[in-house]
Amino acid sequence: MSIGKTHWAIAEGYIPSKSVDDSRELLSHETACILNANDVPANVRVTLYFADREPVGPYEITVQARRTLHLRFNDLRDPAPVPLDTDYASVFESDVPVVIQHTRLDSRHPNIALLSTMAFAAT
Amino acid sequence: MSIGKTHWAIAEGYIPSKSVDDSRELLSHETACILNANDVPANVRVTLYFADREPVGPYEITVQARRTLHLRFNDLRDPAPVPLDTDYASVFESDVPVVIQHTRLDSRHPNIALLSTMAFAAT
Amino acid sequence: MSIGKTHWAIAEGYIPSKSVDDSRELLSHETACILNANDVPANVRVTLYFADREPVGPYEITVQARRTLHLRFNDLRDPAPVPLDTDYASVFESDVPVVIQHTRLDSRHPNIALLSTMAFAAT
Amino acid sequence: MSIGKTHWAIAEGYIPSKSVDDSRELLSHETACILNANDVPANVRVTLYFADREPVGPYEITVQARRTLHLRFNDLRDPAPVPLDTDYASVFESDVPVVIQHTRLDSRHPNIALLSTMAFAAT
Repeated sequence: MSIGKTHWAIAEGYIPSKSVDDSRELLSHETACILNANDVPANVRVTLYFADREPVGPYEITVQARRTLHLRFNDLRDPAPVPLDTDYASVFESDVPVVIQHTRLDSRHPNIALLSTMAFAAT
Repeated sequence: MSIGKTHWAIAEGYIPSKSVDDSRELLSHETACILNANDVPANVRVTLYFADREPVGPYEITVQARRTLHLRFNDLRDPAPVPLDTDYASVFESDVPVVIQHTRLDSRHPNIALLSTMAFAAT
Repeated sequence: MSIGKTHWAIAEGYIPSKSVDDSRELLSHETACILNANDVPANVRVTLYFADREPVGPYEITVQARRTLHLRFNDLRDPAPVPLDTDYASVFESDVPVVIQHTRLDSRHPNIALLSTMAFAAT
Repeated sequence: MSIGKTHWAIAEGYIPSKSVDDSRELLSHETACILNANDVPANVRVTLYFADREPVGPYEITVQARRTLHLRFNDLRDPAPVPLDTDYASVFESDVPVVIQHTRLDSRHPNIALLSTMAFAAT
């Protein structure tokens, strides 16, 4: 089945440089969870916006048919890694409808903190 | 009264295998809170999506008339339990309008962390 | 100015009976933050839904013109207090457009956990 | 590209006066993350609503073209600073479409708590 929208935005973005735990599971990270419930791959272009410099992107991501990709912003490399301790925002453009949810795990302290929200879907 | 939509999606999903507290109340868990404000039962079909395998489902859930069901993904058994420490997403199809909200309680550390967001309603 | 909708729902609801801190500020609580940006009062009727009993309500709330009311579910008394350690959901009907956001502060452990999401607005 | 809406509201608002850490990074704070993906500046007027007094504003904010501004309510000064330990709500009016997300970092305890949600977009 097809569910979602093609254009999404996340206005919040901030990856702390500190983590008390360096395991991949508990490292401070930010994720855009992308669900592609279609029977065809979703080609997604991500653009990052900053407070004091021009946007960076597009980052080109493929989410296979009937799959979810929990994309860590920490893992983005091309055209450039996401700077740490820096405010950013992100815009997603997909060629098929997808659903996008934003989550952060902050492990700067011995006990983690979590936040999550559906991204904003353009209509 | 009737409030809600028939098709919903949650792009984030992850149940940690660890908990410092094994009580049902404080065990690490993920919940889809479903509100059925109608005067008839809601028959809901849940499909789970993964990063690297075909979708699993449908899980068939009934929410009685004028009731809320806080469905723990941890409790799903048929056709298969939800794997722990694994990224997933979920899609809900109901035969009457419902409202769905996503919550996680993470108790991997002595102090719990919480996240919650309304699910995405297809329009 | 007028902003918002007249019908809202929150599918998640759970007030822990335990708190490590009994101050009003840090007691475990759940809040429906209601914004009435209109130049007239908002008369809001709240109905609570449960897992295994009939709905309770309406609770009748007034939010004055150009005011916000951060309504604690813990404070509801008439027709009945909200049971603790119990799953519930809530539906709001206002005679003028309002905006409703759901927040929980959980202080069962020495360090608090927070969640928040916009409620679902019926369209 | 242009993404977003011109009118937004956040019904929750509360800045704790206490922080265990006074660094700017970890001070208890509330943020409205504003994304302006347009090729022109966004002129945003913010009005604050309270429980028991008249609204305060407008605060006038500019978000430059293709930039994101993570506006801390703690930093607002003109026409008046935001009172601490006080319930408030906020309404945003922009002359071009923007996306707004609400985040709080609460550091009253040694371990931080986080919440975030997309603001409500008027349609």
